[in-house]
Amino acid sequence: MTPPPTPLLFAGAEEYNAIWARAAAAVPEIDLVFHRPGIDVTPFEYLMMWRPVPGLIAAMPRLKALFSFGAGIERLLAHPEIPADLPIVRMVEPGLTEGMAQYVLWQVLRHHRRIWELEAAEAEARWAPHLYPPAWERKVGILGLGHLGAASAGLLALMGFPLRGWSRSRKEVPGVESFAGGAELPAFLSGLDILVCLLPLTAETRGILNRDLFAQLAPGACLVNAGRGGHLVEADLIPALDSGQLAAASLDVFATEPLPADHPFWAHPRITMTPHNASDTDPVTGLREVARQIKAHRRGEPLRHVAERARGY
Amino acid sequence: MTPPPTPLLFAGAEEYNAIWARAAAAVPEIDLVFHRPGIDVTPFEYLMMWRPVPGLIAAMPRLKALFSFGAGIERLLAHPEIPADLPIVRMVEPGLTEGMAQYVLWQVLRHHRRIWELEAAEAEARWAPHLYPPAWERKVGILGLGHLGAASAGLLALMGFPLRGWSRSRKEVPGVESFAGGAELPAFLSGLDILVCLLPLTAETRGILNRDLFAQLAPGACLVNAGRGGHLVEADLIPALDSGQLAAASLDVFATEPLPADHPFWAHPRITMTPHNASDTDPVTGLREVARQIKAHRRGEPLRHVAERARGY
Repeated sequence: MTPPPTPLLFAGAEEYNAIWARAAAAVPEIDLVFHRPGIDVTPFEYLMMWRPVPGLIAAMPRLKALFSFGAGIERLLAHPEIPADLPIVRMVEPGLTEGMAQYVLWQVLRHHRRIWELEAAEAEARWAPHLYPPAWERKVGILGLGHLGAASAGLLALMGFPLRGWSRSRKEVPGVESFAGGAELPAFLSGLDILVCLLPLTAETRGILNRDLFAQLAPGACLVNAGRGGHLVEADLIPALDSGQLAAASLDVFATEPLPADHPFWAHPRITMTPHNASDTDPVTGLREVARQIKAHRRGEPLRHVAERARGY
Repeated sequence: MTPPPTPLLFAGAEEYNAIWARAAAAVPEIDLVFHRPGIDVTPFEYLMMWRPVPGLIAAMPRLKALFSFGAGIERLLAHPEIPADLPIVRMVEPGLTEGMAQYVLWQVLRHHRRIWELEAAEAEARWAPHLYPPAWERKVGILGLGHLGAASAGLLALMGFPLRGWSRSRKEVPGVESFAGGAELPAFLSGLDILVCLLPLTAETRGILNRDLFAQLAPGACLVNAGRGGHLVEADLIPALDSGQLAAASLDVFATEPLPADHPFWAHPRITMTPHNASDTDPVTGLREVARQIKAHRRGEPLRHVAERARGY
């Protein structure tokens, strides 16, 4: 006999409710209930939440786990209303992972081929073919070797780029020369042509992308930040681009989102921006992952991808 | 004992001679001699030529084979001074193949994620995240399943795109639903979301990218042409974009190259152009391939990748 679906309270961005409702039809193990004013939230044991909703968790005495919409959970960790013993589950699902790896690949190819030079020529109706080295002569480094970093490395390795990876604790990823901890950061950075940031935002990683770090890369290196806006010291970026220390940057995340219309990044020709859109959780594969976790949890198995408060992700 | 290097006369674009001279240092089997006025060309048995040099071949009585710089050889085939029995060797080498596969992947990701929508928003300092379907819901078709088409398909298959391929004679490529000949062209085209052209330019393929073909794709499909400018009926493209029949196009090749500064393609926001720069022969790996062919030929083995005059490539 099929067990009854598990109720899951869903407190997301209202404009996407319709998409998630359609996805829920493909995941019958879950009874997706959208949070709205006046709803009785006391019976729910599982909650999926994007921006913290004030007062919500205090009103859910039976809550057993909080599922994040995305991979980064620093906003939930910082929310003062979340009990210290409530498990916060980071989203790890194939749609999000593959989308991020594709974004990283796409941006790295863009920098490898210096597409911004072709774009500048195109804007002037100027025919200017250029040469670029083979992939195996471009050193690419990835800050952060979790699920997203490892998947990105997998695609980049297929292109023939020599890869380095850096993480807090040592990770072994095929095809990646691995560096770990603060002591090995200079060796990781030294001479990199393209640097990709996929770190979690913690007290240790905030502001890691700064002038001192840029100076350790190869002259004219390129930066891709798909971690968090807080990783970049924004005031350091345009001077590094204008001095030639960096050749170009791709940013998906910003200190303030949406990025204000008067922010100088918008107008800079060597900054390519996407609106925190590098990768999104796929509603169908994301809900399937949540359903799988809930099913295991109800059998008494531990939840996976639970944030560790002490390390901050 | 190492045999003496084989002399190869090199008639390329003069601005690239220095790069090829450096590459030749890594290929000691070849004695690369740059063509210049006054040189005695009569002893050479092998020639590498880009644009046909008037009178050159008639002055080379011992010539045994002509190596093309690139994959497309329609210009050499059309040259009236080339004897019918002189083998013309198409360039097939890993640098050219991988570069093209990366270009195709990069453009297909661009269209899959409708990056031009993000670019338009960026130009207006407008924060506008958007949704797009997973890769497995985008039907991608490749016209031409030679070395370049097959390598491109290999990368696209890794991204999860459902792939179709079309060629003159049937080809089997892993992960690609294969169509062959004019009779199967409509079934190949039907409902494609992204169409990539990597065909050789022949009497049969000239003008294949036209209004009638666009109408067989999915509404709002995207086009990538990295074959030859002659494949596209240029007058049909902007009307197809402006009517929404096509959403966007990436063009690397044009009827007239360099593209004239007053050509309407330059200014169209949904046409991304590269200056016949999708992929270039890598001087080192390209010369190694020529050296390998010459060595085999001197042993009496047949040359590979020789153009067939009757089929036109």
